[in-house]
Amino acid sequence: MPELHARRRAALRTLLTRVGVDALLLTDLLNIRYLTGFTGSNAALLLHTGGEERTVFCTDGRYTAQSAAEVPDLERVLNRASALALADKAAAQVAVHGRTGFESQHVSVEQHETMKVRFDRVELIRTPGLVEELRLVKDEHEVAALSEACAAADRALADLVAAGGLRPGRTELEVARDLENRMLGHGSTGPSFDSIVAAGANSAIPHHQPTAAVLAAGDFVKLDFGATFDGYHSDMTRTFVLGEPADWQREVYALVRRAQAAGSAAVKPGAEVAEVDSAARRVIVAAGHGEEFAHGLGHGVGLQVHEAPSLAAAGVGTLTAGMAVTVEPGVYLAGRGGVRIEDTLVVRDGAPELLTQSTKELVVV
Amino acid sequence: MPELHARRRAALRTLLTRVGVDALLLTDLLNIRYLTGFTGSNAALLLHTGGEERTVFCTDGRYTAQSAAEVPDLERVLNRASALALADKAAAQVAVHGRTGFESQHVSVEQHETMKVRFDRVELIRTPGLVEELRLVKDEHEVAALSEACAAADRALADLVAAGGLRPGRTELEVARDLENRMLGHGSTGPSFDSIVAAGANSAIPHHQPTAAVLAAGDFVKLDFGATFDGYHSDMTRTFVLGEPADWQREVYALVRRAQAAGSAAVKPGAEVAEVDSAARRVIVAAGHGEEFAHGLGHGVGLQVHEAPSLAAAGVGTLTAGMAVTVEPGVYLAGRGGVRIEDTLVVRDGAPELLTQSTKELVVV
Repeated sequence: MPELHARRRAALRTLLTRVGVDALLLTDLLNIRYLTGFTGSNAALLLHTGGEERTVFCTDGRYTAQSAAEVPDLERVLNRASALALADKAAAQVAVHGRTGFESQHVSVEQHETMKVRFDRVELIRTPGLVEELRLVKDEHEVAALSEACAAADRALADLVAAGGLRPGRTELEVARDLENRMLGHGSTGPSFDSIVAAGANSAIPHHQPTAAVLAAGDFVKLDFGATFDGYHSDMTRTFVLGEPADWQREVYALVRRAQAAGSAAVKPGAEVAEVDSAARRVIVAAGHGEEFAHGLGHGVGLQVHEAPSLAAAGVGTLTAGMAVTVEPGVYLAGRGGVRIEDTLVVRDGAPELLTQSTKELVVV
Repeated sequence: MPELHARRRAALRTLLTRVGVDALLLTDLLNIRYLTGFTGSNAALLLHTGGEERTVFCTDGRYTAQSAAEVPDLERVLNRASALALADKAAAQVAVHGRTGFESQHVSVEQHETMKVRFDRVELIRTPGLVEELRLVKDEHEVAALSEACAAADRALADLVAAGGLRPGRTELEVARDLENRMLGHGSTGPSFDSIVAAGANSAIPHHQPTAAVLAAGDFVKLDFGATFDGYHSDMTRTFVLGEPADWQREVYALVRRAQAAGSAAVKPGAEVAEVDSAARRVIVAAGHGEEFAHGLGHGVGLQVHEAPSLAAAGVGTLTAGMAVTVEPGVYLAGRGGVRIEDTLVVRDGAPELLTQSTKELVVV
């Protein structure tokens, strides 16, 4: 693992040189985790283009043992202080005098005011999103962690269905708790986000939070959930029908499934993100349900459950091999019910790699 | 509930007038939840001192039904867009031309750059922490929610102990999962934070994350966990001994308990936060263990599990009746084990109100 983090830091140094700064002051904990492996809740990293020996990691006294284990390969400074004070300490440590970038997409206006006072020796430069740019394309360690997270979700769903966990009489909350426990049993360290379990008319609410509402025969049951593994998030949605589906249910399900397949087929290196959205959306619009698909097609997934790129009509940019994205069209018929089908995929030359492997056939439970 | 939120908005208007701005642009979701009751993941609020009819709430199309139910009392604008675009929309809606505050403690430097371009009609003023100032003192609705959260944690812990859930042979992870499920069974909507379950030498790591390490006879077992209820967080730590305690375990436990009692006794209106920290810390220092208590005494708790005020040596400010805080001293003996005892309390005239009511006697399980 140290080699992995050293490799990522080397890639960042190349980027910093290109941007024209001597060092980067990092305060975003996910970016610090990506670059060092540190998983604690308070840290700063001053990464210098001059190399590893001028790069300093800071955390506080709660993390003495943990940081020694997780970040054995960098100079560590321990200080009982906030990230900002740590950053100050880090900068003092390496006597930075040159152009120093900071994570302006993460640092608040107030923090910046404080930094300007504290860092009066250095020229602070807005350098937003540099580590996020590296994080866009997943390395094989990251794809492996995403695969584990997706597999935990797949297995939990299979167990839930096999155990009759989706049956009339259970509440949405019971199903959510059951599903989350099954993910833990399959190695997940916790849910990726608050699980969505939406039965009957609630399934027409795209981001419905589970309630004491009871599952009933004839309901659509929409499950949108994910597992975490080694900090990486899976994200999957499947929609079931309790009992024999009505004709309208078969139709809307088949429509969303076609749209999902069209969106997935458009996921390839070089594709414009807006065009991927459009590939799925035009299937739904052609069926007259465009107004009932009121969200983007998908998003990147990794150390955050929602990260770049955004697969949406207003999105800009193109896909690159190694990006991990969701494809999740939905059609929501208010008061009746809705269907969403979502996979997590890795962009590859040729067909994308499917990480969420639960069936997308209409499953009647 | 609408009256509650209207009352909070009225209090904020008073604050805005004092600060000298005509309106406040809110993008922090917890602050928006506090002021409106909205629980979704994308929103902006433009609160005008001119009154409710000039105040606009924005969210996106996923939350049409939810926002109608949760925010029935404000003009709502639905727009498929980011919070920043929503804020822009909100500002346009009410034709703000005057001095407009923004949450500079929350808005990033990059977002601010965008705002400066978009909001060229208004004078943007840094107004950090105004809603957080209101949130410092909890109203009775908030105290009730905190009490429910603390009660769920108390009941879960009692059940866990009664069921023999703390026994040699179980892993830290199993105990954490068991405890979290029991909280759900008592009405919690989820854990307040990643539960800490630390057995044996791991208990000397203040923020140890549970692992596959097995509980063994003679171990300290430290549990730091909390429940959420209606968006509010509880936070409690209890430390147990598996089997008959050794003398050193009795001593360190008694010491931390004395420090915790001293800290709690110092929690009263008008007390300096640094003095509250000191009241507990001097007990531990006097016993020669000052170096082994390397964190602050406590923190505020509410819509966030960690919020103002900070009860720490470097903290500034005084306590006010209605604040909710934790008091959580610890002594950590590296390689041997550690003890932390933590309560959540509400500052009251006279003695504080104890929300976490699990016994602080040394429990031998």
